[in-house]
Amino acid sequence: MTDLLWPGDDRAGDIFTDAAVLAAMVRAEAAWLDALVRHGVAEPAAHDDLSGLIGPDDVPLVAAGAEAGGNPLIPLLRLLRERLKARNPAAASWLHKGLTSQDVIDTGLVLCVRDAVAKIQDDCKIQIEALVRLAAEHRHTLMPGRTLTQYAVPISFGLKAATWLNSILDARDRLALADHLPVQVGGAAGSLAAPVALAGTPIAVRGLIETAAGTLGLPVRDPWHTARAPLTGVTDALVTCTDAWGRIANDVLVGARPEVHELAEGTVAGRGGSSAMPNKQNPVLSILIRRAALAAPFLAATMHAGAAAAVDERPDGGWHIEWATLRTVARRTVTAGSQTAELLAGLQVEKSWMTANLAAARPGIDAEQRSVGTDPGEPYRGATDEIIDAALARAGKTRREGPIC
Amino acid sequence: MTDLLWPGDDRAGDIFTDAAVLAAMVRAEAAWLDALVRHGVAEPAAHDDLSGLIGPDDVPLVAAGAEAGGNPLIPLLRLLRERLKARNPAAASWLHKGLTSQDVIDTGLVLCVRDAVAKIQDDCKIQIEALVRLAAEHRHTLMPGRTLTQYAVPISFGLKAATWLNSILDARDRLALADHLPVQVGGAAGSLAAPVALAGTPIAVRGLIETAAGTLGLPVRDPWHTARAPLTGVTDALVTCTDAWGRIANDVLVGARPEVHELAEGTVAGRGGSSAMPNKQNPVLSILIRRAALAAPFLAATMHAGAAAAVDERPDGGWHIEWATLRTVARRTVTAGSQTAELLAGLQVEKSWMTANLAAARPGIDAEQRSVGTDPGEPYRGATDEIIDAALARAGKTRREGPIC
Amino acid sequence: MTDLLWPGDDRAGDIFTDAAVLAAMVRAEAAWLDALVRHGVAEPAAHDDLSGLIGPDDVPLVAAGAEAGGNPLIPLLRLLRERLKARNPAAASWLHKGLTSQDVIDTGLVLCVRDAVAKIQDDCKIQIEALVRLAAEHRHTLMPGRTLTQYAVPISFGLKAATWLNSILDARDRLALADHLPVQVGGAAGSLAAPVALAGTPIAVRGLIETAAGTLGLPVRDPWHTARAPLTGVTDALVTCTDAWGRIANDVLVGARPEVHELAEGTVAGRGGSSAMPNKQNPVLSILIRRAALAAPFLAATMHAGAAAAVDERPDGGWHIEWATLRTVARRTVTAGSQTAELLAGLQVEKSWMTANLAAARPGIDAEQRSVGTDPGEPYRGATDEIIDAALARAGKTRREGPIC
Amino acid sequence: MTDLLWPGDDRAGDIFTDAAVLAAMVRAEAAWLDALVRHGVAEPAAHDDLSGLIGPDDVPLVAAGAEAGGNPLIPLLRLLRERLKARNPAAASWLHKGLTSQDVIDTGLVLCVRDAVAKIQDDCKIQIEALVRLAAEHRHTLMPGRTLTQYAVPISFGLKAATWLNSILDARDRLALADHLPVQVGGAAGSLAAPVALAGTPIAVRGLIETAAGTLGLPVRDPWHTARAPLTGVTDALVTCTDAWGRIANDVLVGARPEVHELAEGTVAGRGGSSAMPNKQNPVLSILIRRAALAAPFLAATMHAGAAAAVDERPDGGWHIEWATLRTVARRTVTAGSQTAELLAGLQVEKSWMTANLAAARPGIDAEQRSVGTDPGEPYRGATDEIIDAALARAGKTRREGPIC
Repeated sequence: MTDLLWPGDDRAGDIFTDAAVLAAMVRAEAAWLDALVRHGVAEPAAHDDLSGLIGPDDVPLVAAGAEAGGNPLIPLLRLLRERLKARNPAAASWLHKGLTSQDVIDTGLVLCVRDAVAKIQDDCKIQIEALVRLAAEHRHTLMPGRTLTQYAVPISFGLKAATWLNSILDARDRLALADHLPVQVGGAAGSLAAPVALAGTPIAVRGLIETAAGTLGLPVRDPWHTARAPLTGVTDALVTCTDAWGRIANDVLVGARPEVHELAEGTVAGRGGSSAMPNKQNPVLSILIRRAALAAPFLAATMHAGAAAAVDERPDGGWHIEWATLRTVARRTVTAGSQTAELLAGLQVEKSWMTANLAAARPGIDAEQRSVGTDPGEPYRGATDEIIDAALARAGKTRREGPIC
Repeated sequence: MTDLLWPGDDRAGDIFTDAAVLAAMVRAEAAWLDALVRHGVAEPAAHDDLSGLIGPDDVPLVAAGAEAGGNPLIPLLRLLRERLKARNPAAASWLHKGLTSQDVIDTGLVLCVRDAVAKIQDDCKIQIEALVRLAAEHRHTLMPGRTLTQYAVPISFGLKAATWLNSILDARDRLALADHLPVQVGGAAGSLAAPVALAGTPIAVRGLIETAAGTLGLPVRDPWHTARAPLTGVTDALVTCTDAWGRIANDVLVGARPEVHELAEGTVAGRGGSSAMPNKQNPVLSILIRRAALAAPFLAATMHAGAAAAVDERPDGGWHIEWATLRTVARRTVTAGSQTAELLAGLQVEKSWMTANLAAARPGIDAEQRSVGTDPGEPYRGATDEIIDAALARAGKTRREGPIC
Repeated sequence: MTDLLWPGDDRAGDIFTDAAVLAAMVRAEAAWLDALVRHGVAEPAAHDDLSGLIGPDDVPLVAAGAEAGGNPLIPLLRLLRERLKARNPAAASWLHKGLTSQDVIDTGLVLCVRDAVAKIQDDCKIQIEALVRLAAEHRHTLMPGRTLTQYAVPISFGLKAATWLNSILDARDRLALADHLPVQVGGAAGSLAAPVALAGTPIAVRGLIETAAGTLGLPVRDPWHTARAPLTGVTDALVTCTDAWGRIANDVLVGARPEVHELAEGTVAGRGGSSAMPNKQNPVLSILIRRAALAAPFLAATMHAGAAAAVDERPDGGWHIEWATLRTVARRTVTAGSQTAELLAGLQVEKSWMTANLAAARPGIDAEQRSVGTDPGEPYRGATDEIIDAALARAGKTRREGPIC
Repeated sequence: MTDLLWPGDDRAGDIFTDAAVLAAMVRAEAAWLDALVRHGVAEPAAHDDLSGLIGPDDVPLVAAGAEAGGNPLIPLLRLLRERLKARNPAAASWLHKGLTSQDVIDTGLVLCVRDAVAKIQDDCKIQIEALVRLAAEHRHTLMPGRTLTQYAVPISFGLKAATWLNSILDARDRLALADHLPVQVGGAAGSLAAPVALAGTPIAVRGLIETAAGTLGLPVRDPWHTARAPLTGVTDALVTCTDAWGRIANDVLVGARPEVHELAEGTVAGRGGSSAMPNKQNPVLSILIRRAALAAPFLAATMHAGAAAAVDERPDGGWHIEWATLRTVARRTVTAGSQTAELLAGLQVEKSWMTANLAAARPGIDAEQRSVGTDPGEPYRGATDEIIDAALARAGKTRREGPIC
């Protein structure tokens, strides 16, 4: 999968591609079929892992068939059943029994989101490591602090890095609270009526769901066909990530302006060039990260609009806007996370320019210090060390204990 | 405060009005001044609780003065200092020492949000109680389940109420994770330079902040001038609330259609009338709740756009879009929460219409039951009881232990 | 009306305040009553201009009564009718006859929007004049052109001003196409049934509508209760304005950075100060303009979400989100338009810094010129004069002839 | 191109696919090269139409190369130049001379949007024809008018169809005003410096641009690298289309509810089925149209956010969010337009249910008629015929003369 119009999209690789979605839906069907067999609801002959039946080449056919039933599962199921019938008629007759389209689609989406979140969490770790290093290394690298675009008071670049770090740690924590997306099994109208009819009792169905969820590595939850907080929760967390990264990119873009010159992206052969101006060395990663941060709030909001449009036992459009939106926000966040990891790992800190800019900012930038009655000749670091140390300590924890604040 | 164009806004009362914001900013200044005195940074004569200096009548003057410095704190501070000087010159000279505008504004906003969240949490409790009652009472009240607007399989209204309840419990849990908004004390550029200059050491400043935060009842956090996840976290939680309520309102609006007739808002004298049609009894609460749910995603997204626009040590616009947005989303969510509490407490369930609609939906609505080989004459409740019981149990818990899912 | 949390809001003065909305709705009722009398549908004794019956002090009462019927017209009408009855019972009995709430509310909103648009158009003229002057005056003021934050090729500041001007001219043209908002008269369900019953024939009703619309100075249009393109059209145009102004503010904010120093806001006593840093001179107008541009897309999108949610002959929430949204976007755009007019009229162009920055950008910034084989010593102005002249010519036209492109 | 997660996307066919974008950018380069040769700026030997050099198979390579320079034109140009060199070295050396990446990308996007708009306009015509027929045919088909979900007064279905028609005519008119998207030729920083250096004079460059624009069939406009109203104008028009269609879909979805039963989608073999419920006949087209309308406002708003983020002579992210957003909104609008055309062409109007529902709504629904003193036994059509006739007349015009209102 490529997206010519979202440069860097290939960083998201196979995550949440059309082929990945198909595969995830097949995995959801397979896990359920397996549970039916393992619990003795279906006959042993129905055992089949569904492998090898559907592949990336089937995407166009399934996609073209998706409109008729309003979702991609129906044509996928038809294809799957048809092919399965040839090799295992018993399995074909038990396939999807008790499930509804939304069960398989939601579970498939969840599996795809999970892959995206895992990649983002890996990249967050790289980002955090890079920022821990930058904060520690530049603890005393003085530069002008700026508020509302103007010189405020001197700060150290380490303090700025610690603030960036805190933003990423907030995003990491938000993501950790939202990443346990559950399996969806509810049947036609969320009552589990068909599964209970098949398995005999609600307790037996609970066992089926636990087995299938266990196979997929997903938590169990009661049907959430029209209770979409799991999905809005994770997309809110994703946009919290892009907020944090965009904020960093904004600083790099200011710092990379030639007049400021305090920061530069790491040099990579062939990156940052122009089609017409041989002199250019554009801060490409920061631009593309900033782009993701500009667009993401609209995508997360779309998910909320979908959740708020839920009605009946399955919505008439509110559900349908989630699918492509979720994919887009997931892939773009993966891409931006990878770009931010690389940006921070390679960030060039131009200490001499920081020093020179600070010197040029004087004496104005020392006005507050004078106003509180201390000598601009003396350090004016405030609690810089303590703030940096706290951020470093926080980075060392894998999970915060308390509530997000 | 009134908003003629957002009917029901008066339910939010004094929460987050202009006057409330002024008062909250004065409280933040007072808590800091008190901390300076208590810790011996300021002289004892500077003790002053700032009471009686600023009131609702000052709103127009402060508002009109807000543009010059780009924020309302600067004119408020001028007024406060001027009036304080007359009664306590020492206090006037220590007022705001070590703080920056953003410290006071952010803390003031946090205090206002906290009031809104507390009111919402109270209303969530009423909603939950009402739904617990409805789910239990209508455990066996059969009605047609509907998916994609069409008849699916029979469900009970209790199951539907349990699903609504799960949505609200999700929102409650999300809010519980986001409601510990911290104090903001960072000084001009987030280094606490001026406070440390005044108090002598970072440890002394930590003491000041803890004292001030304790007075205000807020948690301490390192400066978050450009790390806005606390605010996006709470607005994401608020929109999760309106998502859940909007989803309920959608169902009531369908149920209140005269052809469906399964649900009706409680009758209140004078409510639901029309300016021209004497026959009308409009489901006004549901309409106004749905309205809030339609609009809220755009407001939460605006907060993210602000967070993502952060740059330098204080942003050039990204910060400024938060204030009015936060107020709007907070007051609207309070209003919608109160309306939903009343809607659910008074909801009329028309069992006879549910029964009649279900009868009319037959035999089509029994097709799935037949397809899984059981007799439509037999119950087809699936795990309805277990799902209801689980929701009721969850409602009994004040806080979920695990991750949101 | 003040909005403490949107500094500068007082620039919008009385436009679209709650009191202005009440007055506009009364004007709509008065115009209709007058038409009924003038066309002989109502008796001559029913003549009454409704003046002096409702004033700003009635806002709280009407606002508090708005929830019961779901809109502010119902309590307003009750109050109006009650007071009118005392002075003119015939008028009271004819008041609102044939109309529905939505007729009066939509027409009232349209009258308020029109005032906002007129003010914005006035400010656009000031902006255009300022930019015409800047473009002409700085035709040859060389500075570095920047793309993707980096030096590109030399440009003149006059060219930049011409580009800004083109953006504003686009917005002006968009607004001119959207500013003919129509009267709303449709009756209960958009069929004009009641008016025709009262007046006898559709032609007679057409006469009534034309008279009332003429009184209000609004164009006639067939009922648009659920066809909301007039309102989305004008809000799209308003956000096109804030886009253009935000883009200018962004450039000023970069130019005002102390390291760049090419642009500065005009000096106004007391503006741009800080609560803690005596050295600060913040580009306050630009920050507040940028703020408006960051927030506006969400508001215009909310209007579209409302339009898209229309259903039946009057929507169940989609209509209701428009009112406050329209007011907010209108007042904010008025405020930003006024601020931009002032910003541009007072903009300081620091030629010496432009010259110095350009010198520092050499020789890199001349790379393209060398690559096309001309000597960096020679001018490299391209079509700067022609582009400036075309923008100046376009500014001279009151209306473009062709389609927007 | 397929989008598994946006059922119906295949209706957009090849419009704005990655391959189409590549081809459009090549066309832009070819038109410029041709202009250089035709005007004698480039030598005759440089004549080459660039055909056969780049194809759909090149998408992955170009996409993967897009990140390094931050846009897809740079790797495309490299590939194009390399391949061209082998067959025509003179052409290769003149390729892209005088242009900047943004010139080619913007022009390429414009060409793709134009194809989308043309398809939408074709489908609008089909929609309009269908609605003209429905409005005329059901002029006297009585049904209950509904406001705020409740019975209001009787209307005819023809009146409803006329209202739908007016919405689509508004959208058509909006689109007609926005569809003249211009060519982009500005050179590195919008001054046309390099083209003038190559061609000698601004007048000569004007000739080049007119020739190239003529080849592409695009209007000329001065550089609009940072003046993005052309693109926001067209996306605003596209969302005005989806607003209109969504509003229709909402009505069909209400009408298709089994209890209402007044409207049904045309029957198509295999459409509307369910994966579990053999009884289902879901109104799939309406659901998918409504989906598009729910999502579109966020996309148009993203375009405005991009426009408002413009800065310098080429923005650092604001430009980059436009590309994929524009494609998404264009393809989705094409899809929804095609679905709406089919929906309206096949719409089933169940007159007997309308009659029955109206009967059941009596006598309440006649309350207004009684209140204005006419007998419910008499017709209460108001100006239904005149409103329908006006809409039909408006549909007959290919372009409205006056401003949109």
